[in-house]
Amino acid sequence: MEGYGWSTEVSVRFAETDAQGIAHHASFVVWLEVARVQWLAAHAGGYNRIREQGIEALTTEVHVRYHRAARFDERLRIWTRIVDLRGARFRYEYVVERDGEVVAEAWTAHATVDAATHRPTRVPPWFAEAIATAGP
Amino acid sequence: MEGYGWSTEVSVRFAETDAQGIAHHASFVVWLEVARVQWLAAHAGGYNRIREQGIEALTTEVHVRYHRAARFDERLRIWTRIVDLRGARFRYEYVVERDGEVVAEAWTAHATVDAATHRPTRVPPWFAEAIATAGP
Amino acid sequence: MEGYGWSTEVSVRFAETDAQGIAHHASFVVWLEVARVQWLAAHAGGYNRIREQGIEALTTEVHVRYHRAARFDERLRIWTRIVDLRGARFRYEYVVERDGEVVAEAWTAHATVDAATHRPTRVPPWFAEAIATAGP
Amino acid sequence: MEGYGWSTEVSVRFAETDAQGIAHHASFVVWLEVARVQWLAAHAGGYNRIREQGIEALTTEVHVRYHRAARFDERLRIWTRIVDLRGARFRYEYVVERDGEVVAEAWTAHATVDAATHRPTRVPPWFAEAIATAGP
Repeated sequence: MEGYGWSTEVSVRFAETDAQGIAHHASFVVWLEVARVQWLAAHAGGYNRIREQGIEALTTEVHVRYHRAARFDERLRIWTRIVDLRGARFRYEYVVERDGEVVAEAWTAHATVDAATHRPTRVPPWFAEAIATAGP
Repeated sequence: MEGYGWSTEVSVRFAETDAQGIAHHASFVVWLEVARVQWLAAHAGGYNRIREQGIEALTTEVHVRYHRAARFDERLRIWTRIVDLRGARFRYEYVVERDGEVVAEAWTAHATVDAATHRPTRVPPWFAEAIATAGP
Repeated sequence: MEGYGWSTEVSVRFAETDAQGIAHHASFVVWLEVARVQWLAAHAGGYNRIREQGIEALTTEVHVRYHRAARFDERLRIWTRIVDLRGARFRYEYVVERDGEVVAEAWTAHATVDAATHRPTRVPPWFAEAIATAGP
Repeated sequence: MEGYGWSTEVSVRFAETDAQGIAHHASFVVWLEVARVQWLAAHAGGYNRIREQGIEALTTEVHVRYHRAARFDERLRIWTRIVDLRGARFRYEYVVERDGEVVAEAWTAHATVDAATHRPTRVPPWFAEAIATAGP
């Protein structure tokens, strides 16, 4: 996918479908999180590395635009990148693709907070470096 | 809530929480659907009335902005209204509130399609009328 | 329901259905938890009263027998009772009913543990009393 | 795992955890389904091969016994086998394992029905053969 250098895959689970016979739209929100977790594992030592330092990454905004329905057992590729890191805030962008077709586009916004106080805390330097190194 | 004339309530289920100790952000997307279904029951004979006519209402876009965390067993009020009905498309707007505080703001976009062909089909007149009658 | 003195209700959410057009079987496991939480609210001061004392109630076993399919927007009544309280262990039994028909039967087993150490800890006396008072 | 010749893996998603900091017990029920779908793909041409013939495999019973908690991002191996095929009914058995430890044991019972009428219909011969060939 143009502008994206990394992707992961999910298969649509039967539990994720609904009575319209397609993947329920909330399932995509979970898949985006799966993609973020794997992005972090691939680029920044994993989400648990962040959590072990007493930092939580909250999701502050979610936007998904659905272009096509996804069906049971289909394999979807989720192109994922981080953009706009500033202080305690950053955003992910995603394209969900199936066989060259765009199934959905999405972005999520996040803030890093102290796990104990839930107050904003800057993204750790090694995380910022990991993002810079990852590129698009 | 200013600008909203109708609301419903959900309680945060334990299954909807996550290891951050708060309601998982994807849970909100499900609650918005619960609110839509109850809005339709209150104003337009219920979602099944639409489905019985061979029409499905697809969700084409979801946007949620999280302001505060929600916790297990909290009761949340979801203010809900339809805006922007045009042909086969319409949008819902929502404010999720807890004791006068805004927990989240959201909107979703929808398109009515023929259940068999999945082609766009205009919103039925009685549905358009129900929306007009419902007001904000 | 014979042998049961308390019940609560859930409506089948659209997100809880699957591509067979019926409520996904895992949804029932979540509804049983909703019923337990409401049983505790009705009889023992709520689940948070237990959690505030540093005790967690773990689920150690789940059994569900499905008799009939449940469909979107159907209202199900969940008959619920506690049986077999012994030390740190107790069981719930359930009948999921719709209009006089049994949709599912279920039981779950639980153990109370110290939230910090996750070691078994006896059910608090006030909880045991609440159970005794609740009756079947 | 003794007595099991096939397994698959899942990673615990963050959305699958709960406020106890562990994988929610209903998540296991979804994972068992993921294992069944992959078992069918490995041994019998996939679940869609069954669905394409107008047959649905309903879940009629679920039993899970939880031995240990599973945590976010842990990789779990699900040992899976079919037992007791008779007419329109069969059972799966499972052991969920992490690094040689048993996390959970489970079984599920299923019935094949005609997708249109939801009446019991015998398991197709090729499916019965696939099961016989698969062995334990």
